Amino acid sequence: MPKSNKKLHKTNQKIYLDYASSVSPNASSLHELGVKTRQKLENARSRVASILYSRPLEIIFTSGGTESNNLAIQGVVLAGSKRKIPHIITTNIEHPSVLETFKVLAKRKLAQISLVGVEANGIVDPKKIKKEIKKNTILVSVMYANNEIGTIQPIKEIAKEIRHYKKQHRRNNIFFHTDAVQAGNYLPLNVEQLGVDLLSLSGSKILNAGRVGVLFKKKNVPLFSIFAGGNQETGFRPGTENVDAIVKFADALEFAQKAKEKETKRLTILRDYFIKKLPRGTLGKLGKNLVINGDLKNRLPNNVNITIPKIPSDLLVIELSARGIYASSKSACKSGDGKASHVIRAINPKVKDEDGSLRFSLGRATTKNDIDYTIKSLALILSKLGKWYN
Amino acid sequence: MPKSNKKLHKTNQKIYLDYASSVSPNASSLHELGVKTRQKLENARSRVASILYSRPLEIIFTSGGTESNNLAIQGVVLAGSKRKIPHIITTNIEHPSVLETFKVLAKRKLAQISLVGVEANGIVDPKKIKKEIKKNTILVSVMYANNEIGTIQPIKEIAKEIRHYKKQHRRNNIFFHTDAVQAGNYLPLNVEQLGVDLLSLSGSKILNAGRVGVLFKKKNVPLFSIFAGGNQETGFRPGTENVDAIVKFADALEFAQKAKEKETKRLTILRDYFIKKLPRGTLGKLGKNLVINGDLKNRLPNNVNITIPKIPSDLLVIELSARGIYASSKSACKSGDGKASHVIRAINPKVKDEDGSLRFSLGRATTKNDIDYTIKSLALILSKLGKWYN
Repeated sequence: MPKSNKKLHKTNQKIYLDYASSVSPNASSLHELGVKTRQKLENARSRVASILYSRPLEIIFTSGGTESNNLAIQGVVLAGSKRKIPHIITTNIEHPSVLETFKVLAKRKLAQISLVGVEANGIVDPKKIKKEIKKNTILVSVMYANNEIGTIQPIKEIAKEIRHYKKQHRRNNIFFHTDAVQAGNYLPLNVEQLGVDLLSLSGSKILNAGRVGVLFKKKNVPLFSIFAGGNQETGFRPGTENVDAIVKFADALEFAQKAKEKETKRLTILRDYFIKKLPRGTLGKLGKNLVINGDLKNRLPNNVNITIPKIPSDLLVIELSARGIYASSKSACKSGDGKASHVIRAINPKVKDEDGSLRFSLGRATTKNDIDYTIKSLALILSKLGKWYN
Repeated sequence: MPKSNKKLHKTNQKIYLDYASSVSPNASSLHELGVKTRQKLENARSRVASILYSRPLEIIFTSGGTESNNLAIQGVVLAGSKRKIPHIITTNIEHPSVLETFKVLAKRKLAQISLVGVEANGIVDPKKIKKEIKKNTILVSVMYANNEIGTIQPIKEIAKEIRHYKKQHRRNNIFFHTDAVQAGNYLPLNVEQLGVDLLSLSGSKILNAGRVGVLFKKKNVPLFSIFAGGNQETGFRPGTENVDAIVKFADALEFAQKAKEKETKRLTILRDYFIKKLPRGTLGKLGKNLVINGDLKNRLPNNVNITIPKIPSDLLVIELSARGIYASSKSACKSGDGKASHVIRAINPKVKDEDGSLRFSLGRATTKNDIDYTIKSLALILSKLGKWYN
């Protein structure tokens, strides 16, 4: 640095004149701060890739689970719809971001869709998925674990059935997507072992994670981006990357995956204790008709879901909330509409809109004491409300 | 609370059993924490609405500027494409998230598009916009301020021309969108006075803002959401809202808008000083051919953009970076591809890919000292590099 500049400028002082790119450094900028930001981003990408046993370039960061699911499904359909309308398959208990995307694509005549019904235990039969595959099928999307009833789907077995079909029919362009948003804390995410081509994750469901999403997309899967714009995320997701949130997400996912065995053991004990203590015997007809939803074995360690006849979900949630217990009736995305959840209806065709369901989803801070208090409170609420209905 | 529960449970202790909705409270949950989160969200929405002189329900929160622009353009086209292919108009210097969206819609035969060329000063003639309006035109999209050369477009005048056309032709379904991402810090955002139906903002460009975007959408504008899923953001933007970031955004936008007059004055002086001191006279042929891009009056107070013949942009950015000065060559979204920016080409058809451009965008921390050092460094770099080219 010349002498005259030394006077003007302290050594190591940095002058940021790139506010129009972003007030904090933009990972696409070519200057030193841009390069450093890009390194942080790519380091986070590598760490997420390593948890998924995938390649860094197969990781696309998005704004959340809804975007990841939309990108996977819309992206594969748009990339595959050159000649004829493609066919896509899912189940009837998917998250709204999958199910509604299917319905919108059908309505716009961009795809034919098949919804495979799950069994009464909330688990889909892989053979029924295979049965639905047709000549023009290009995508199967089945969630890893259900957000309402916590049932874990046989992803490996479904992948196997799809592989068999592809082998028998000499096809290679049928792709398998799983919405793994509820699986990030508790289940293995090795995409090779799962046999999936696309997998969605969300920071919203992982403690201390940044509010971002991930779409794993195997290298060979043709995908169109939903957004048009810059070249970020290899062009699959234009828009300035939320690098700080992405780094937080990588940290949190690493932590959750390391803790998952121990935490799964702990929560499984609490969950089963919760289910055992449910006040069925003390509630007469109400207790008799109380249903525990979803398979008791193949389910997330943190999920308890019950249906209580003739008492509306929203009322139950509000009564619990008044006692300091924060549970939910169904997917938050669809709460408050007064209708029975599509998931509960799928496993129990007899359920009516006036039958309430409750989802208790446990987490890092949950203790046995919490469960005891919740059970007692639930018994009191049901005794009180039950009287009106008996 | 009954005595037996008091033993189990400390008063005021809260039990969170809604981890599946979100590890931090979800604004769609019905329980107390959900309601509180929803209140925070709606408070932020009201504050943003008040800055825009709009109604709270006209504010849609998104993941950023790219999504807001895509939602505005794709959303209006998808909602309007029932009978015939709609026609949409923009300029040739828009941000890639607008321009590429136009091109993708044209490629997919979802829209006919017209790109109106700006004048040599980087400003579009409102009469030329009006001239392009046809029977099937449903949308005009013109950015408020350009991200590369900082020119401010005559938004009010364009709105007026569109209004005249609508009156003359008894039409009411032509909507006017402006990408105001670069305007958030310095320009008035009163949508009534601007006369726009849709307006995009981004937190990335506002100091201390959360990484979210906003799309203002006037109540009467028909819009389809890009994502399918839950009912968040009145159904226009499904997905769990990033409430903490949204609150930060509202705070930062309020602050920026309050500070804008004072900051505009301060930066205008710095910008004009920068332009005056550009080392044109000392650089021989190079200095003679150095061009200041864009109108000098109708431009953002923080933008200086120059073209330097025969020295590649990326080299200039890296040389400056080595001296601790972080500037950029063009939009970060398109940086590093070695091509002349579409904006510079639009105002200067003679520009070649090997002619470098530099954008200096000033901000809150920029001082006169920074400008002096930058000018001296630029002179040194240009003298050094200029020798190789003369």
